[in-house]
Amino acid sequence: MARWQPNAPERLSKAALELFAERGYENTTVIDIAERAGLTKSTFFRHFQDKREVLFGSGTLAGLITEAVAAAPEAAGPLEAVTAAMDAVGQAAFTPERREFGTLRRAVIDANPELREREALKGLALTAALADALERRGIPGLTARVAAELGALAMTLAHERWSDGGDFGECARQALAEVLAAVPAFAAIPR
Amino acid sequence: MARWQPNAPERLSKAALELFAERGYENTTVIDIAERAGLTKSTFFRHFQDKREVLFGSGTLAGLITEAVAAAPEAAGPLEAVTAAMDAVGQAAFTPERREFGTLRRAVIDANPELREREALKGLALTAALADALERRGIPGLTARVAAELGALAMTLAHERWSDGGDFGECARQALAEVLAAVPAFAAIPR
Repeated sequence: MARWQPNAPERLSKAALELFAERGYENTTVIDIAERAGLTKSTFFRHFQDKREVLFGSGTLAGLITEAVAAAPEAAGPLEAVTAAMDAVGQAAFTPERREFGTLRRAVIDANPELREREALKGLALTAALADALERRGIPGLTARVAAELGALAMTLAHERWSDGGDFGECARQALAEVLAAVPAFAAIPR
Repeated sequence: MARWQPNAPERLSKAALELFAERGYENTTVIDIAERAGLTKSTFFRHFQDKREVLFGSGTLAGLITEAVAAAPEAAGPLEAVTAAMDAVGQAAFTPERREFGTLRRAVIDANPELREREALKGLALTAALADALERRGIPGLTARVAAELGALAMTLAHERWSDGGDFGECARQALAEVLAAVPAFAAIPR
């Protein structure tokens, strides 16, 4: 009898992470994860398509980014829209309370090629979501793609710094400023 | 009895591409590919680790990029080093003779999620190889990463234009100039 399970996705992600860290990704089954979370296998599959997916939410970050970019003030340029997306991600996903989970998640992913592969694809999907959202604001396609690539690089750097204890939003603004400052160092023709 | 097979990797890639296009990726086996190429299954596995890999060379592009960046003149800055990598890729892999193969390959990859996944990961590996090679020239880490991301975006655009009939090296230089010109449009604070 299916009942509503409060916070089922969070409980499943937390249980999965614990098990992956304790006994390894390969040695953990979906049934193990559901049991540890006090839920059933069918609840697991209502929220995640497979074992790999359990550490990657359900498209939440891409949705957050898309909404935040769309909700930025009409007069906002691409830089402000990207900053709004970074703030939204920081407030919803990379909070101080999630730091411990995030650090353990990082270690588990780094230790497993299948998880690294999924992580890489999720990163590409986020970059594409950001570029698409910027284009829907009327930003020309190439500017949107450049903005999304540089914004994604800034978020990757910010994630590392947030893991070490910083505020994600502040780290992301700082990292984006550094990324933009590095462009002339790349583009300059040496004498 | 293993004999030296001239151009075995090229013959296998060509045979695989034909079969994927004719009957679909899912309906093609490694044995089918080897037979079509007039080679054996064991020759296939000497060159490629699995069926997906047959359309992605054997790390050749990453090697080309690494060598070209290392071989750029000592006085060359990051922009010249990235340009050298783009030229090397164009001369070795994206020649006019390979355009037909490249266009068919693109269509086969776009039609299959597993191949798109592998393609995405190969792209990330190339970007990482470019960043690493730039760092080994003494270019600061962040500048190297920014250069690699923007260079990779330019190569993606150049690949599309090369498919449509352009010269890869010229298209890549042009695309990189456009990418760099788009940065201020992103970075500008709106009034």
